[in-house]
Amino acid sequence: MNDGKTPVIDSLVEFVIALDPAALPAAVTEAASLCLTDWLGTAVRGSKEPLADALAAVITASGGEPQATVVGRGLRTSALFAAMANGAQAHALDFDDTHLPSIVHGSAPVAPVVLALAEWRHRSGRDVLGAFVAGFEVETRIGRVAGRTLADRGWHVTGVLGHFGATAAAGKLLGLTRAQLRHAFGIAGTQAAGLEQSFGTMCKPLHPGKAAMNGLLSALLAREGFTGPTGVLDTHGGLLSTFVGIDDLSRATAGLGTRFEILENSTKAYAACHLTHATIDAGRAIRERLASGVDAITAIECRVHPLTLKVAANPDPRTGLEAKFSVAYCAASALVRGDAGEGEFTDEAVREPVVARLRQRVTPVADAAMGIGTAHMTIRLADGSVIDEHVKAARGTAENPLTREEFEAKFRRLASVVLPDTKIEQLVTGLRSFTTLADARKLVALAAR
Amino acid sequence: MNDGKTPVIDSLVEFVIALDPAALPAAVTEAASLCLTDWLGTAVRGSKEPLADALAAVITASGGEPQATVVGRGLRTSALFAAMANGAQAHALDFDDTHLPSIVHGSAPVAPVVLALAEWRHRSGRDVLGAFVAGFEVETRIGRVAGRTLADRGWHVTGVLGHFGATAAAGKLLGLTRAQLRHAFGIAGTQAAGLEQSFGTMCKPLHPGKAAMNGLLSALLAREGFTGPTGVLDTHGGLLSTFVGIDDLSRATAGLGTRFEILENSTKAYAACHLTHATIDAGRAIRERLASGVDAITAIECRVHPLTLKVAANPDPRTGLEAKFSVAYCAASALVRGDAGEGEFTDEAVREPVVARLRQRVTPVADAAMGIGTAHMTIRLADGSVIDEHVKAARGTAENPLTREEFEAKFRRLASVVLPDTKIEQLVTGLRSFTTLADARKLVALAAR
Repeated sequence: MNDGKTPVIDSLVEFVIALDPAALPAAVTEAASLCLTDWLGTAVRGSKEPLADALAAVITASGGEPQATVVGRGLRTSALFAAMANGAQAHALDFDDTHLPSIVHGSAPVAPVVLALAEWRHRSGRDVLGAFVAGFEVETRIGRVAGRTLADRGWHVTGVLGHFGATAAAGKLLGLTRAQLRHAFGIAGTQAAGLEQSFGTMCKPLHPGKAAMNGLLSALLAREGFTGPTGVLDTHGGLLSTFVGIDDLSRATAGLGTRFEILENSTKAYAACHLTHATIDAGRAIRERLASGVDAITAIECRVHPLTLKVAANPDPRTGLEAKFSVAYCAASALVRGDAGEGEFTDEAVREPVVARLRQRVTPVADAAMGIGTAHMTIRLADGSVIDEHVKAARGTAENPLTREEFEAKFRRLASVVLPDTKIEQLVTGLRSFTTLADARKLVALAAR
Repeated sequence: MNDGKTPVIDSLVEFVIALDPAALPAAVTEAASLCLTDWLGTAVRGSKEPLADALAAVITASGGEPQATVVGRGLRTSALFAAMANGAQAHALDFDDTHLPSIVHGSAPVAPVVLALAEWRHRSGRDVLGAFVAGFEVETRIGRVAGRTLADRGWHVTGVLGHFGATAAAGKLLGLTRAQLRHAFGIAGTQAAGLEQSFGTMCKPLHPGKAAMNGLLSALLAREGFTGPTGVLDTHGGLLSTFVGIDDLSRATAGLGTRFEILENSTKAYAACHLTHATIDAGRAIRERLASGVDAITAIECRVHPLTLKVAANPDPRTGLEAKFSVAYCAASALVRGDAGEGEFTDEAVREPVVARLRQRVTPVADAAMGIGTAHMTIRLADGSVIDEHVKAARGTAENPLTREEFEAKFRRLASVVLPDTKIEQLVTGLRSFTTLADARKLVALAAR
């Protein structure tokens, strides 16, 4: 779509405006619907986390028109605040999806925007999915070019680039003109933020929440004539130029509207940082092959891409949150327990002596020759024998995807902590037929406690 | 106050918590009160700008508890939204103050927070001034170390560092604990943003508005137990490390609590970018000395610090907003008109043929040997004669300050566009005795239209 002369922002604007939800490939629509299913489960479950209480307290005190639901809670507020709270809730457990080629948690900043607008503006399921795809493509395409560099320099890619995904989605559902959408991208870009230093604090999940709110705000302001820097994705002095010295994003638009990034999305089968999942799969596989108990293991080597250890090298996690960013803990826990759901990432689970002992025998090794998201685990046993396992694609990745049934099972497990079974089944049914909903509002409202 | 070992964030937290409004030097309290006077005038006048309409439309649609006034308008909303709108309004005309050593518009992100909280929480005038000083010192001290580097790399310093000023002010008035305030700074730091590319669009004024809202949000969240990256001002991977590679901010706390940055603040006597003011003063002075009319001027050289031309080099402004960032226009307008108030920065004023012709004869010259905020203008006349003028400190700077009467005259002029005279005089009287107000709420509420 990009001829090398058209500014990137113009190509993205044209893509968003021209996108016809009814004309999307069936696989794309299905992927989007699975994303929303997975996102909603994590957002409902996240409503029980302490950060959700803090956000709800501030939002309740501030007030707002009851436009949209803070899912999993009995709170309706402005679409702006609902987008912030839901965006943070869904990322609170770090259990939401990741588009690995861009390192963007793709649904996190976009889903809260489309669902808030679905409620506020009574939009159809198909329109909501179309807007979701628009947002997902925009942020992940920029991320495919700039994500690694952003991460290397200390930025949280989802926080920064999520602003563009949220804006695209909001712009699509609000029916912005081309000129308005260009300004909206500029308004969003100049608000884009998020430090990797926040990992391990409540601010990591706040990032997609703020990206969602800021993106929606940008689209709402642009619709009222607000102006912003429309060179934000193209010129020297633009966002990625200023953040990391990348002046040329033209590769981001190759195949736009034809090739869909959402088809390369990864879903978390485990409740930890995505980059630990191949290690967990390796541990699970070795556990199946172990004749002896884990006490016989004398050493565990986990060979992974350097990026994995940049974010998940913690050798000695003290809390469940820290453990999600610890290859050592994930390896030990998988070898001992064979699973890595929410139950394996509580503060209590981290203190459990057998796992705590075993993780001290783990040596993570950074190896630039490994692919991102792959792992090679080698364990040595007391009898001198060695078992190793290579994982090329963790469960839930595009190469090794979950089935819809597995998605729905994860949704049920997450939602059951908050919602009654009857509501959960209504939600599962509604999500399964999302494209046919004339008004998605009712479905979203079901996610209120 | 900093011993070289105490983390910068701890020194700043201690300063904010320990600050006793009643114990501030009289000159500091007076400076703060003049800042609020100047800020309120620009915020009231800014309510007539198109960006204020856009913000008010979005805020009105979103709703909120009527905690605080959007000044100059008949709108009361949540403190968060009021802080955003007022912060943007006050910077809309680029007529608010600047702390030149840090390049931070000091009042812009802080005043909207303290006034919103004054209304919401019924705080005394003295407490409001104390919190204002806390915020002003924190942001400008960081800016004194990092401001120039931030600006050189394409960041809007006020947008980025205003987050810390707003947080300090909000934390003070909300009575945060030390631990809460440390987290609040982290939460704010990871939201900090603002591209210089936005200059000339409505996003430049949006930056202090968002900084105010984000800072207040950070303090409100921290009070509810929300956590953030407390290494944000100290460690590698912190804000300035990630933004511009500065890992050491320890100089920022030298003399904290003893030496006050607010005493080095500059107020705008002219309605343009602060860095053009010395040029305007030079033009005004030369105008007084000109025997002939301006048509006799064949060439105008404006020698200024390179930073001035980084932000105000526009040779051919088409709108009033662009003209505020044009040394060429400012020089020509001052030579022709002898003033540079709001009336000289309308779209019409920019098209005026005499000025438009004269500005084509201006050659701006970047000279690193010039001090920031100084100017040397040399004009050549048709008869071969030369007149030059060197301005070391523009009117309104710390070295050449405005009197309270001049502050009040500027306030009256700005407010008169929106408010009736009776209200204006009540406001002037109230602002003059701000330290004695038991409840600052009533004063702020007067600024509603």
